[in-house]
Amino acid sequence: MDIPLTLASGTALEPSGVTVLFLSLAVLLGLARLLGEIARRLHQPSVLGEILAGVLLGPTVLSQISPSVYAFVFPSTGATFIALEGLFITSAALLLLVAGLEVDLTAAFRQGKAAIAVSLLGLVIPFLLGVVAAQWAPGFMGIGEGARDNQLAFTLFVGIAVSITALPVIAKILIDLNMFKSDMGMLIMSAATINDVVGWIVFAFILALLHTAADPSGVAVATQANGVPSVGMTITLTIVFLVFMLSLGRYLLHRSLPFVQAHTTWPGGVLSFVLVIALGCAAFTEWIGVHSIFGAFIAGVAMGASSHLRERTRETIHQFITNIFAPLFFASIGLRVNFISAFDPGLILVVLLIACTGKVSGCFLGAKWTGMSTRESSAVGFGMAAQGAMGIILGQLARAADLITDELFVAIIIMALLTSLVSGPMMQKLLRRPTKRVLADLLSDRQFILQLKAVGVREAIAELSQRAAEILDLDPAMIDREVQHREQTMSTGIGNGLAVPHARLTEIKKPMVVIGRSPHGVDFNAPDGRTARLIFLLLTPRDDQTSQIELLRLIATTFSNEETYQRALDAASTTEFLAVLRVGDSEAPEHI
Amino acid sequence: MDIPLTLASGTALEPSGVTVLFLSLAVLLGLARLLGEIARRLHQPSVLGEILAGVLLGPTVLSQISPSVYAFVFPSTGATFIALEGLFITSAALLLLVAGLEVDLTAAFRQGKAAIAVSLLGLVIPFLLGVVAAQWAPGFMGIGEGARDNQLAFTLFVGIAVSITALPVIAKILIDLNMFKSDMGMLIMSAATINDVVGWIVFAFILALLHTAADPSGVAVATQANGVPSVGMTITLTIVFLVFMLSLGRYLLHRSLPFVQAHTTWPGGVLSFVLVIALGCAAFTEWIGVHSIFGAFIAGVAMGASSHLRERTRETIHQFITNIFAPLFFASIGLRVNFISAFDPGLILVVLLIACTGKVSGCFLGAKWTGMSTRESSAVGFGMAAQGAMGIILGQLARAADLITDELFVAIIIMALLTSLVSGPMMQKLLRRPTKRVLADLLSDRQFILQLKAVGVREAIAELSQRAAEILDLDPAMIDREVQHREQTMSTGIGNGLAVPHARLTEIKKPMVVIGRSPHGVDFNAPDGRTARLIFLLLTPRDDQTSQIELLRLIATTFSNEETYQRALDAASTTEFLAVLRVGDSEAPEHI
Repeated sequence: MDIPLTLASGTALEPSGVTVLFLSLAVLLGLARLLGEIARRLHQPSVLGEILAGVLLGPTVLSQISPSVYAFVFPSTGATFIALEGLFITSAALLLLVAGLEVDLTAAFRQGKAAIAVSLLGLVIPFLLGVVAAQWAPGFMGIGEGARDNQLAFTLFVGIAVSITALPVIAKILIDLNMFKSDMGMLIMSAATINDVVGWIVFAFILALLHTAADPSGVAVATQANGVPSVGMTITLTIVFLVFMLSLGRYLLHRSLPFVQAHTTWPGGVLSFVLVIALGCAAFTEWIGVHSIFGAFIAGVAMGASSHLRERTRETIHQFITNIFAPLFFASIGLRVNFISAFDPGLILVVLLIACTGKVSGCFLGAKWTGMSTRESSAVGFGMAAQGAMGIILGQLARAADLITDELFVAIIIMALLTSLVSGPMMQKLLRRPTKRVLADLLSDRQFILQLKAVGVREAIAELSQRAAEILDLDPAMIDREVQHREQTMSTGIGNGLAVPHARLTEIKKPMVVIGRSPHGVDFNAPDGRTARLIFLLLTPRDDQTSQIELLRLIATTFSNEETYQRALDAASTTEFLAVLRVGDSEAPEHI
Repeated sequence: MDIPLTLASGTALEPSGVTVLFLSLAVLLGLARLLGEIARRLHQPSVLGEILAGVLLGPTVLSQISPSVYAFVFPSTGATFIALEGLFITSAALLLLVAGLEVDLTAAFRQGKAAIAVSLLGLVIPFLLGVVAAQWAPGFMGIGEGARDNQLAFTLFVGIAVSITALPVIAKILIDLNMFKSDMGMLIMSAATINDVVGWIVFAFILALLHTAADPSGVAVATQANGVPSVGMTITLTIVFLVFMLSLGRYLLHRSLPFVQAHTTWPGGVLSFVLVIALGCAAFTEWIGVHSIFGAFIAGVAMGASSHLRERTRETIHQFITNIFAPLFFASIGLRVNFISAFDPGLILVVLLIACTGKVSGCFLGAKWTGMSTRESSAVGFGMAAQGAMGIILGQLARAADLITDELFVAIIIMALLTSLVSGPMMQKLLRRPTKRVLADLLSDRQFILQLKAVGVREAIAELSQRAAEILDLDPAMIDREVQHREQTMSTGIGNGLAVPHARLTEIKKPMVVIGRSPHGVDFNAPDGRTARLIFLLLTPRDDQTSQIELLRLIATTFSNEETYQRALDAASTTEFLAVLRVGDSEAPEHI
């Protein structure tokens, strides 16, 4: 189901091609990660920045500015192009493996009726809306050349494209809102899980349908001559594969994992085992005609819930794939399409409308039906609306199969991104949840005093208050007075070499931290008798009930790790100090 | 410098090609890891099994048995072939990145005179022997078509090929012998480090020389038309690159790492940063004409020693690359050559002789010169002889550049493998070191009693002794008596729910462990008052002074981790128990 390519004959991976291969990878990965990080700093999903990198480096921008540079770095024919395609396809499969590994079907069904109701209504309503739109106005909706003879496949695709959810994005949102383990979090995760698995299965059937439609083009004929099964066979084999992998296959894998772990080096053996299974399933599903990434996803689902798959294995797979392969894949999307010439505001609006209203109202109704309040049901609806990576991958496949036009492809990507951007803030607003705070995000260079001059408690507080006042443009004496006053009621040395003098001020709107490092330690009268070498001045708004205690907890947990504490003392600059903090902060896993 | 390929025109990565791509990867990775694991179980480097996998799947075996299966799974032309080539080239570069990351130049030079003496004599003597042989009998030694006009490059290559060492293999051997941190271990590591870096630099110059020689063939002319620099330029740029990367570049990277860590998500940001730098350097060195993997290696060297590169980042890179990319690359080597038809016993013998005598005697003299004993100097010599992965990569590059014949290529691979196999056992023999023991290696299914019936200490010991006697074919009453006797002198409950009744027997030749799990716990009178739920019967030979205490330490440290302990109690089968043990055991990192 890939873009048919024409190659200049005699092309091969020569040294110049290898140079371009590594150059392309370095530029793509570098810019994708850079913009991805910027997106995250703006509290947006990193996939936004990663796709933008591709847009900047692709036909939309770079090719307009300098066609020759674009043609050199990202050739669109030849051996390097094929080698890159191979890497992108592998990246997509590995990405879906990771998505599959996060699926816990057993836990999802354990949530019972509520999860199923939210999931199915959230799937059926946008699906129906999409189907109606595609059936009613296929031309406007962007039916592709490859679907002219098979409108059913196009119609079903539009239905699925507006009703899929993005499990990883949703997980990330819930973690950020600190409600991943809450009842509502579990419900949303379960519903999204069922939604995803059902959605992908329907998509596999669309690809099977398309298998016939593509025949006249000559591509599938050639492959069928290679011994690829017919459509009836494709559907039968897909069902057999699915049923096998989610029942006996899942059981066998669960039983195999401890065996592999017992008899191979660790964690390498399990790591390779997981990849071999995923690659094998990918080859199988590609062979039967439903795309490799479906096989990789189902392989992930079959292994992900196994209690024998250890955290360290997951972590290694997850880190490497989400930080290397995922950015490469998402950036590669922008390399293929001109986002400006294929930008159709009307179509984008319609797709957005269908996806949002369909998804939110469907899930709202499902949640309402199981007895939730209107406010909670709305939160569930918005929580489920994030389409993120999944919608983008679907769009990419459909476009490669020529099922949709570039216009619809661009509309789907924008819809997938916008729903992911809106989902978190809407839930937060509806539930009035504070976001999870990360210490390093609150800090800038000016908020560090690497060498406190003070020897005693009073001077230390004065020195820190002075700095806080400079940054906040407030009266230093006032801050000092408030903090000293608080310090007298009870000493703020909390042990482990830490002290947290603090005050609540009416004058400020958000929390402020200033960190001072004392070369010899200041005696804050800590319970363990240690002098404080790291002193945190915490200033929080008077009417903010939670920030102070949360910051206290953050500081205590971050520096309870002796290595983090020691590294903080050794840091040679504020940047190094910040680096230490960021490592100490990161407990929750990252998600796409 | 890659094999020139001819492509059928119009070839592209179609679905059938994607199927084959994933199938090839799954088969290669699966068999390579399987045989690699078997090699490790036989206490051999895993690279041995990985290469064997390629030999089995390549022209040597599979193609002889079933040419059609071979041609289908590993096509030698077309889009899938190019995509696989691209992945193998990327794998090689990443592998060298990992090798580079393990280099600590500062620590190596800190070892001073001794390391430099061992390293240089160990480099110069085999190098001279190789050069003499190549100069004297180029035909016999296997000069390739591509070097006919440039015999100097061939001569220098043979010199380097017999004098390089394999840092990762040596590190692994030293860890296994538990002498990585010993004085001799540090000396060997430092000498090997200097040896490797110097060797690679010389190799880069050989490639630069070859750059002209290749001109008449048309390939380099074509690339030079693309703006690739001339030979003089290549050498100049190589020197500039090297000097920059190992001085200012190294410093800048060291300073950048905390910045990246401070301002990006962790550990993903640093992970991507390391890869982008490596890919960029790979592209640069490929462009100037000295192969991408040299750039990746030097990038690794420039970042590896930075104290800002955290263990977790290294670990993720290391695990993913050594367990996925390295096996793919090593297996791919066997796919290219027929090891039987290119097997030349005379040549193999000569290459082995030059490499072994040259290396061992060179390092021996270097070590002797710095005042080591004859026995120690010999151990250093054999420690440095392991060529492993590095020799193989060099051979692979030279063959791709047509610098050497298939015969010499096969001889180099066999020499690299044999030196790696011999190095560890020879050192062990010379130094009389015990190998590092891993608990799981001592155990088989019969050595577990998952449900001890015993309630008291006497019965528990009797039950375990009975089982031990069955396995050892000895008298149960004798074993029971010895262990009970020892137990009466002092109780063997060591706390944390563990007990280790034990005895030393004249009747056995090697240590024997039987593990019993008690559902309710047996009171072995432990200092912490906890009853023992895991009871280890340890039987060691009477004249073995160290095994007993070593096993005790292994058990105590493995199960001091509460999660390991709990999982061991929960394990549903002996296989699961073994799996838990293997995870608990693995502290040392794996190496190629």
